Amino acid sequence: MTTTLETTGTRTPVTVIGLGEMGTALAGAFLEGGHPTTVWNRTPERADALVAKGARRAATVRDAVAAGPLVVVNVKGNAVARELLESAGDALAGRAVVNLTDGTSAEVREVARWAEGQGAEYLHGQIMTIAPAIGHPDSVVFYGGASTVYDRLHPALRLLGGRGSLIADDPGAPVLYGMAVHGVMWGTLNGFLHAAALLSDEGIELGRFLESAGASVSALVSFLPSIADAVDRDDHAVEYGALKHHLPSLEDLVRESRARGIDDEFPAYTLDLVAKAIGEGHADDNYSRLIEHFARR
Amino acid sequence: MTTTLETTGTRTPVTVIGLGEMGTALAGAFLEGGHPTTVWNRTPERADALVAKGARRAATVRDAVAAGPLVVVNVKGNAVARELLESAGDALAGRAVVNLTDGTSAEVREVARWAEGQGAEYLHGQIMTIAPAIGHPDSVVFYGGASTVYDRLHPALRLLGGRGSLIADDPGAPVLYGMAVHGVMWGTLNGFLHAAALLSDEGIELGRFLESAGASVSALVSFLPSIADAVDRDDHAVEYGALKHHLPSLEDLVRESRARGIDDEFPAYTLDLVAKAIGEGHADDNYSRLIEHFARR
Repeated sequence: MTTTLETTGTRTPVTVIGLGEMGTALAGAFLEGGHPTTVWNRTPERADALVAKGARRAATVRDAVAAGPLVVVNVKGNAVARELLESAGDALAGRAVVNLTDGTSAEVREVARWAEGQGAEYLHGQIMTIAPAIGHPDSVVFYGGASTVYDRLHPALRLLGGRGSLIADDPGAPVLYGMAVHGVMWGTLNGFLHAAALLSDEGIELGRFLESAGASVSALVSFLPSIADAVDRDDHAVEYGALKHHLPSLEDLVRESRARGIDDEFPAYTLDLVAKAIGEGHADDNYSRLIEHFARR
Repeated sequence: MTTTLETTGTRTPVTVIGLGEMGTALAGAFLEGGHPTTVWNRTPERADALVAKGARRAATVRDAVAAGPLVVVNVKGNAVARELLESAGDALAGRAVVNLTDGTSAEVREVARWAEGQGAEYLHGQIMTIAPAIGHPDSVVFYGGASTVYDRLHPALRLLGGRGSLIADDPGAPVLYGMAVHGVMWGTLNGFLHAAALLSDEGIELGRFLESAGASVSALVSFLPSIADAVDRDDHAVEYGALKHHLPSLEDLVRESRARGIDDEFPAYTLDLVAKAIGEGHADDNYSRLIEHFARR
């Protein structure tokens, strides 16, 4: 139970705490990768299928944590994560905790500080995929923490997703990366569903729309690096596509929505932002100028 | 002046009405393609550079329309487009009008009906690029109208963008396609700028974020065909990524935004939509279920 990859060349024993859909997938990936895997879940029956595949079921969190050097946590919220880890008592000292539990950056950092205060090493990870894609070579996990810890654990962690990477030494950074990607996702999905309402109202099938317009939709993300650069440099000058050119198109979209009696709140929200920025003298600026709205305090 | 591609094999004479930044690019593309090009603009000096390249400046819209079989219009709004075409009087009969003026589908269809009533053929086009990309092989223009007209004009129209296509016989459809693509764009941009505010508040450069997370952001558009299919089939069952799984991530994003004092309206908007759908019994449904919000009457 004290063997590690470095000292013996065998697979590092891994403990997985929390066997929801995602935790079960994580434990399954470690098992498939040949790691001795100990699991714990508040409802022990959730471990049955994993035990049938060779996992060891721990009776307590303390027992689970004591089982090996790498403790992976994936539960509902960081208050629960901390409470469970606290129940391990002094078994936590000397372990590496990889917490994959969702939360805000402040919540994550608090768990990190506490765990390190207990003598544990700590990485936080933000999983960017659904459970069945765990272990896929294209699956992404963002990690934050010490590179020495990440590098040592990498042979085990790469089993979770082929595109995992350490993005910062700050354990709070991965959840911010996750929120950023998901925030773009919700904006994109809402924009698409509003468009879907418009097209469906006209009787145009969305599949047919994507056949002709899919390339134009896919090309939209290619604008983001230039927007990112404008925000990073705080320089919103632009030669083409200034806010004043967005305005009439937004007005058309709002009028079209109202004429059809479909939702006008979503396009009107953007129209208001653009009109306000133009009113403040930014007509010739890049869309990136609207960062001043979103970053407002 | 009565020659056409079919009868003589020479380039069809083209008239361009409206020489804003876009109209000037359109006329330039026809000139470069070897088409005899007549131009008209309310402020005649806007044509100077085109005349220097070989365009003919018409003194009146009627004169411009009479100059050839293909009349391209790109002005500010379809009320202006119609007023200008009306001033051509009976010169319009027998011409093909390709109106590239932005507007709602109802406005476009009214111009189409009126022009056809004057004995003209009519296509509407929605330009999906900025002026300097006119003529590029990847540039997209969506057309609506009769395929016989589109096919005959194609040798001239393909000069405007290599990825132009006829998407419907309805002249109102192209503006809806344009609004749909732009609607996704605004949603994506707003989501990205909210994310930018979050990351910038933490001192994370967006360029650095995109280095690690760019692939995850680009992958978001790959979700759209399945959302489109769910809406088209009106079947919102889903195995993974149901609304109940979006909820805690949205709550985290709202809490993170509030804790930092940055905009919480944008994420709270989505949280409300998701929470409302879950309250209505759709917790296990695909995000596509929110179409019922956007399509509400």
